[in-house]
Amino acid sequence: MIAREEIANVLKGYNKKEIRIATICSHTALQIFHGARQEGIKTIGICLKDHKKIYDAFPYGRPDEYILVDSYSELPEDELIKKNAIAIPHGSFVEYYGKKNIESTRLPMFGNRMSLTWEGSRDKLYEWMKDSGLKVPKVFTPETIDRPCIVKTSGAKGGHGYMIVSSPEEFKKKIKTTDYHIQEYISGVRVYPHFFFSPLSKTGYTMKRGSLEMMSIDRRIESTIHESYRSTIAGIELKPSFTVMGNEGLVIRESLIKKVLEAGEGVIESSYRLFGGLTGPFCVEMICTDELEFYTFEISARIVAGTNLYPTGSPYTSYSYNEPTSTGRRIAIEIKNAAKADRLGEVIY
Amino acid sequence: MIAREEIANVLKGYNKKEIRIATICSHTALQIFHGARQEGIKTIGICLKDHKKIYDAFPYGRPDEYILVDSYSELPEDELIKKNAIAIPHGSFVEYYGKKNIESTRLPMFGNRMSLTWEGSRDKLYEWMKDSGLKVPKVFTPETIDRPCIVKTSGAKGGHGYMIVSSPEEFKKKIKTTDYHIQEYISGVRVYPHFFFSPLSKTGYTMKRGSLEMMSIDRRIESTIHESYRSTIAGIELKPSFTVMGNEGLVIRESLIKKVLEAGEGVIESSYRLFGGLTGPFCVEMICTDELEFYTFEISARIVAGTNLYPTGSPYTSYSYNEPTSTGRRIAIEIKNAAKADRLGEVIY
Amino acid sequence: MIAREEIANVLKGYNKKEIRIATICSHTALQIFHGARQEGIKTIGICLKDHKKIYDAFPYGRPDEYILVDSYSELPEDELIKKNAIAIPHGSFVEYYGKKNIESTRLPMFGNRMSLTWEGSRDKLYEWMKDSGLKVPKVFTPETIDRPCIVKTSGAKGGHGYMIVSSPEEFKKKIKTTDYHIQEYISGVRVYPHFFFSPLSKTGYTMKRGSLEMMSIDRRIESTIHESYRSTIAGIELKPSFTVMGNEGLVIRESLIKKVLEAGEGVIESSYRLFGGLTGPFCVEMICTDELEFYTFEISARIVAGTNLYPTGSPYTSYSYNEPTSTGRRIAIEIKNAAKADRLGEVIY
Repeated sequence: MIAREEIANVLKGYNKKEIRIATICSHTALQIFHGARQEGIKTIGICLKDHKKIYDAFPYGRPDEYILVDSYSELPEDELIKKNAIAIPHGSFVEYYGKKNIESTRLPMFGNRMSLTWEGSRDKLYEWMKDSGLKVPKVFTPETIDRPCIVKTSGAKGGHGYMIVSSPEEFKKKIKTTDYHIQEYISGVRVYPHFFFSPLSKTGYTMKRGSLEMMSIDRRIESTIHESYRSTIAGIELKPSFTVMGNEGLVIRESLIKKVLEAGEGVIESSYRLFGGLTGPFCVEMICTDELEFYTFEISARIVAGTNLYPTGSPYTSYSYNEPTSTGRRIAIEIKNAAKADRLGEVIY
Repeated sequence: MIAREEIANVLKGYNKKEIRIATICSHTALQIFHGARQEGIKTIGICLKDHKKIYDAFPYGRPDEYILVDSYSELPEDELIKKNAIAIPHGSFVEYYGKKNIESTRLPMFGNRMSLTWEGSRDKLYEWMKDSGLKVPKVFTPETIDRPCIVKTSGAKGGHGYMIVSSPEEFKKKIKTTDYHIQEYISGVRVYPHFFFSPLSKTGYTMKRGSLEMMSIDRRIESTIHESYRSTIAGIELKPSFTVMGNEGLVIRESLIKKVLEAGEGVIESSYRLFGGLTGPFCVEMICTDELEFYTFEISARIVAGTNLYPTGSPYTSYSYNEPTSTGRRIAIEIKNAAKADRLGEVIY
Repeated sequence: MIAREEIANVLKGYNKKEIRIATICSHTALQIFHGARQEGIKTIGICLKDHKKIYDAFPYGRPDEYILVDSYSELPEDELIKKNAIAIPHGSFVEYYGKKNIESTRLPMFGNRMSLTWEGSRDKLYEWMKDSGLKVPKVFTPETIDRPCIVKTSGAKGGHGYMIVSSPEEFKKKIKTTDYHIQEYISGVRVYPHFFFSPLSKTGYTMKRGSLEMMSIDRRIESTIHESYRSTIAGIELKPSFTVMGNEGLVIRESLIKKVLEAGEGVIESSYRLFGGLTGPFCVEMICTDELEFYTFEISARIVAGTNLYPTGSPYTSYSYNEPTSTGRRIAIEIKNAAKADRLGEVIY
């Protein structure tokens, strides 16, 4: 893992008036570029050659400048550093460049790159969730399965390849890999609240080390399970799958906001105990039971795709900001504020 | 029930230029305070001590002033009256202070408090729905159950504790209380249109006594039933429950707006026949069948939580107002207009 | 079919400074009138007498002027032409006036009326979808049914009357008409992306003949199947039906936008090959499988009701326009631009 000081050194060399926001043209890039444009920050899109046309189709969402590539195998760090770029590591960025690149690159990244390592390892993630004081689904080994469980295999990207099993026998029949995670199936409604933690801001949910802002909420839409009720009622057999293909919006009962903010607070407090703190956008993936208790089954230590529902703000940001504010815009605001206060090192690593 | 004249007297003592909007910090409070702020009306939040921090997290949704309490057992009416406060009785307000307090307090409340009594009693509610000319689900006694029915037990708050039964035997096995309501189960899609009825306004759907405005629509999200299809397809047994945990948005076919507005009109006309009229926000909870007929299973005679989806307006308010208008803001507008026209007594009781 | 030149002649007689937008008061009329008002174009609503009150209830969505009728049997073409009206043929317009009227009327209509003929015939529609290079569900005859299929009978309006069958025997038992279309049932999640194709515009997804803009996405809500999971979990038998009663919003994974835009591109390219080109709003109805492949089961060659979710713009239009832009407004913009550039004939037929 590259040292925090080394990134701080790179940042020192940056022309603070020419800072740019860069990311891969995928995932939440339109939102990130759109938000940066609203704040007057120039953007750079690392883009597959045949995807440029797609981004050009959105004049207010496309980057100001492209770095066209044939594949995402190599991060153009030198070029980006020369352009005073701060990378926003969204989900595809993390997936395409991979753990190794992200841990070693000299390119400054928004947030704490350590958090990406912690979200990326199932063991670390569970340690983090538990240390955060969150209720988590029970974990099983294949032999001890005694109730419905979700099995996530290691290769499973975006939910593709998840499976539900209820017994050791069913596990044996269905799971052929050796790298898996078995989690109790919790009945309820999935909720994906999006947060932003800022060590600079003083508005929002006040914490010792900064301020926690509730940005929005989504639920993921997964093919085929999301419309499986249609097959069920028609008597059509269907092996459910969990490939995330989109997102839909919702609000929760106002009285549940307390529990949700406290979950976010726990995640942040723990991140400081475990690895120097998480800053910027994150999401705590939860299930709300019929007793209105939340079980957390994942943390995303970065901007999540569900925020794409809200490029002009969400029901929650109406109560927090004077202007329509997406998570993408909030990132740009944080970078501007940090640059002004000469505290970039606190929100970028 | 305190007399209308007595409330009118309290209002006479109010400084019309210092009127404040007050409610309990729960349910739709962020929206109500946000809307009042947009209209330049100061707000007071009656708030549990350990919830203040939650409301402070939303600078544009928090109240201007708090009355901090240990519990909601006692309504601080004297303090509120001294501060020229008009209470907005949202769902939690009604639940926490209870029928008795609401019927007797000298505190002026937005709308007609009689309507809260009528929505709160199952018998009165049915009388109201029928008098409104609405199609309602058939009501059963335990012995006459001959089709799928929803049983709502008296303690059931927010849907928690609803059950589905299909025969007298099943009823006997499942229902242990003596206070219940048995309603035919209607197949279709739930629709919760939000209305605002104003005796002052002249825009909107014109009625004899004022104007009916269509604010927005939601559907409630209930745990566990809302995602029960996931259990079903995976072969996981689930006893469905109906605890409301959130809301999601939708629009209906434009040709259905007529039926929906006419349902709202019926409810208002009936409210004048039965108890002196309902003014302000309300919701008519309906099911839309595959023949595009609406069955009404409930009326909420106050702002509902589904309006929280639309703090900056809904698809329908775009067609009604020149500025982004939530139901919370609409309430503030009505109070301002009534104060200006010296007609507060018509919309406050 | 009336000749394009004849419509061009009618347009020549129009006072370009007094052009009006006209449509039937139904379907997407509020959005269309609202959008025209935003662009300063006066509107005319052809309206059933007892629906006028509904439209008057929406001061920013109602037309500037009404033509009140007892039924939609006769298109008031002379009156509309005298008023320099351009008709917007939304779904109800097409349904109420019918193929024959639409093909023969001298009234200028936004878009290419040929496209309505092509969307309205199942055979032509399939030819179009295939020529567009889209994956389509397999079509069956009653005898060859060997998997779950959706049967659409000819009278089926708005999904009412669709059925699912899995064998020739089941077909025989359930389907009593002789006019039907049998389509493979594809498992996945339905997606209804809304496009706008402009031969004038240069922003958006660049194509040989113009520019393709991605407006928004919805999913249709159909009674009773949309909430059939509630019956299923409660053990209530339900014959699913597919009557469209509303729409809900969603966004798709950003990486899927490419496939969606390319589907739209294929539809446009094909429309020029087959019948002189589709311009203006359209929708490609698709199912997204768990392999993230799209199957197209329909094209709507006109504004669809799902756009009613977005009268102030969608997550996607945020990235395309500087101001809140609905599909209704986009139509008005196109008419204005075409009038200014003296190219009305290209977007109106």
